[in-house]
Amino acid sequence: MGRLYPEGIHAVLASALGQYPELQIRTATLAEPEHGLSTEVLADTDVLTWWGHAAHNDVDDAVAAGVQARVIAGMGLVVLHSGHLSKPFTRLMGTSCHLSWREAGERERVWVINPGHPIAQGIDRFIELENSECYGEPFGIPAPDEQVFISWFEGGEVFRSGNCWVRGSGRIFYFSPGHESYPIYHHPLIQRVIYNAIHWARPQGIAAGVPRHVPVEQAREKIVPRGLKVHDAAGSLR
Amino acid sequence: MGRLYPEGIHAVLASALGQYPELQIRTATLAEPEHGLSTEVLADTDVLTWWGHAAHNDVDDAVAAGVQARVIAGMGLVVLHSGHLSKPFTRLMGTSCHLSWREAGERERVWVINPGHPIAQGIDRFIELENSECYGEPFGIPAPDEQVFISWFEGGEVFRSGNCWVRGSGRIFYFSPGHESYPIYHHPLIQRVIYNAIHWARPQGIAAGVPRHVPVEQAREKIVPRGLKVHDAAGSLR
Amino acid sequence: MGRLYPEGIHAVLASALGQYPELQIRTATLAEPEHGLSTEVLADTDVLTWWGHAAHNDVDDAVAAGVQARVIAGMGLVVLHSGHLSKPFTRLMGTSCHLSWREAGERERVWVINPGHPIAQGIDRFIELENSECYGEPFGIPAPDEQVFISWFEGGEVFRSGNCWVRGSGRIFYFSPGHESYPIYHHPLIQRVIYNAIHWARPQGIAAGVPRHVPVEQAREKIVPRGLKVHDAAGSLR
Amino acid sequence: MGRLYPEGIHAVLASALGQYPELQIRTATLAEPEHGLSTEVLADTDVLTWWGHAAHNDVDDAVAAGVQARVIAGMGLVVLHSGHLSKPFTRLMGTSCHLSWREAGERERVWVINPGHPIAQGIDRFIELENSECYGEPFGIPAPDEQVFISWFEGGEVFRSGNCWVRGSGRIFYFSPGHESYPIYHHPLIQRVIYNAIHWARPQGIAAGVPRHVPVEQAREKIVPRGLKVHDAAGSLR
Repeated sequence: MGRLYPEGIHAVLASALGQYPELQIRTATLAEPEHGLSTEVLADTDVLTWWGHAAHNDVDDAVAAGVQARVIAGMGLVVLHSGHLSKPFTRLMGTSCHLSWREAGERERVWVINPGHPIAQGIDRFIELENSECYGEPFGIPAPDEQVFISWFEGGEVFRSGNCWVRGSGRIFYFSPGHESYPIYHHPLIQRVIYNAIHWARPQGIAAGVPRHVPVEQAREKIVPRGLKVHDAAGSLR
Repeated sequence: MGRLYPEGIHAVLASALGQYPELQIRTATLAEPEHGLSTEVLADTDVLTWWGHAAHNDVDDAVAAGVQARVIAGMGLVVLHSGHLSKPFTRLMGTSCHLSWREAGERERVWVINPGHPIAQGIDRFIELENSECYGEPFGIPAPDEQVFISWFEGGEVFRSGNCWVRGSGRIFYFSPGHESYPIYHHPLIQRVIYNAIHWARPQGIAAGVPRHVPVEQAREKIVPRGLKVHDAAGSLR
Repeated sequence: MGRLYPEGIHAVLASALGQYPELQIRTATLAEPEHGLSTEVLADTDVLTWWGHAAHNDVDDAVAAGVQARVIAGMGLVVLHSGHLSKPFTRLMGTSCHLSWREAGERERVWVINPGHPIAQGIDRFIELENSECYGEPFGIPAPDEQVFISWFEGGEVFRSGNCWVRGSGRIFYFSPGHESYPIYHHPLIQRVIYNAIHWARPQGIAAGVPRHVPVEQAREKIVPRGLKVHDAAGSLR
Repeated sequence: MGRLYPEGIHAVLASALGQYPELQIRTATLAEPEHGLSTEVLADTDVLTWWGHAAHNDVDDAVAAGVQARVIAGMGLVVLHSGHLSKPFTRLMGTSCHLSWREAGERERVWVINPGHPIAQGIDRFIELENSECYGEPFGIPAPDEQVFISWFEGGEVFRSGNCWVRGSGRIFYFSPGHESYPIYHHPLIQRVIYNAIHWARPQGIAAGVPRHVPVEQAREKIVPRGLKVHDAAGSLR
């Protein structure tokens, strides 16, 4: 990752987030078996952050499906920058996740549009990034459940840069600032947003149990079965 | 499909919807090549209705991906009853789409919770179905963009039975009443809802073009490139 | 309104929209009795557009309440520019509707973020306005039900400039471009957006009837009343 | 309030919530000056719970406006049962908040539709209330930002019984179970939901400052003012 991230973006973020004593940080990279994201590791993870760029297609479909399933079961997911085209994110969104983009080192101003949101804590009205990659609308995502940030770019674009979704029992935050050719992940306010997002995304409730056939005798109200049936009493197709 | 739908559910719906002169109806079934849903057919379709039950896994992944892509490009999709676990629907939702269920021929009352919505036109306060399959919460879907119906079941459950989403430039409506062992698709008000949904789901705007690299000289504001680059001038990774 | 709108902004919009034969246009102004918005006029109006600036407090509370009630019953409402602080809009939103602003004749670029939305029909990727009043985030509105446009401003701000809500059976669109000191309402694409919004906002379904006491004998399921009561059989408090 | 709530519903809730050491509970009632909700008290309140029934019109408009303003500034609001027609709630919603209802002591089953939501913590799949007042759809509210509970009623209705909104920097939860003629507020799971809601609704971020004129020289990007003006340099109308 060159001179800005000699040990990788994950190492910079792990170091920054490691200053918070309530967080236990582990890292996982593409080269590891199952990309370091075995079922056991995922089951033991509250919030997963994800950054990727050129190698999205090298991510194993089974691992991507495992991340998706774990989010639905309650794990938080924080997707960074070019992770918008990662397999776990596009599977969870169901849409193209395409966007416009330009790499010109231009100025980005990340505006807080929702100052009451926990992910905006500690940020005043905006974050200014002197050099950033431009991401522009339209961004091919489902309408966010909550919008926290919208970015302004020097070259004339706008972008929904901080977006929240709930999928199943899991919370997802996408945050667009960051690129391997700028020191954005060294910026304390960017680190603060990611920290806030990790707290926001941690599991809140319980997962829905699946699948759930409810036999007649377990119905909460007394009913008498009637009509044709294509299933037997246990719920299997005849 | 037995005595209620001797020629299939699709034939009953095609006949009912065929009474509306502004609609041009075609049908496609699992047994046809590409399930009758070639790229050409999809490109020429404004709104696709989808019913399926036991054979979801027999649907070709490429066809499901084609339907998903066409919805994102603007085609409407109306998903019926057990289609909640169909490949196109689960790909677009990104979640489990699981639910509770019971086949007991019990009474269902489909309540209009949004009388101002176009899909509720012509329905008074509810539709009563004397025999229905119970679908119950929690339903593993993303929060609907608009909620039109919620159902009451004799055995004690509730269910979000009429839900709208926008994905890309396409509109999706899921409507749960309907089962192969009840005459629900012969009910004039159920047919009316499906008719309304087809009108609501027809393409409204245009699809977002993809992908979109915006070279520096095409930026709307004059900018001078600066900083490191991982892409060349045409947008390819170096 | 000076040289740009010698007969008022309403006259320019009425003339522009009058070119569409399917629309019947009437105008109403502050100086008229009941501001031209009697109960009869409102009852006979499908979609109301609203522009106001310095005289918000001169609008009669009863008229504002009448507009609010009519929207809830199904009338569409298209609120323009400084109408964000009008009484009907703030009553319907329930929030401050405050924003940041600056009058410097700077450039605004109104980006389409939702190309599949009917209000974006006929607009390519953006509308450029060489001179505009800057409105900036945070904008004190409830999260829009649908977001159509986000604006970029030369001075560094962003703004959610085209927002949809449903309230009761009525549809509301807020569109921020426009000011009495710029020719924005003469711009054909701005007129097109307002035209699209009027079509989008027209009544779609029916209003919910109110109030609705449901006596025991009218319950859809047979029930036997039990327990204490604070109401009599007709629903009045004892 | 009769034999179920000899000291008032507020006393039962204060006692139940008082068992949690992290909560500091105070009560306020209609008969007190300013209903016990002076500006100072509101400013010192993180979350306000509100129950009212027959006396909504006796609530002072200024106090209702004060509650609304404080919610927008970040205070949480938990509205209970017949509080759906209270002045603070209807002002914040902007809609009729009307519903169907019937007092017959019938069974209500409050279903968790969002098991991952923090307000559902500690509730299994539903809460059963043997005697409840029926509230039925359509409920005249803006679409909730999050839906947590939907209720089933013995007499055949459904109702969105647990709904979340964000307004300004404040969080609002409406929870319908509860009536002065049933012991619902003595039910430990109902108390648990209210406890969860108080935690969910506590202030999360900061309020947006208002109003905000941004003079040209304070714009983040250097701009040269041009065009006509209706405001002077300080932002006042000429």
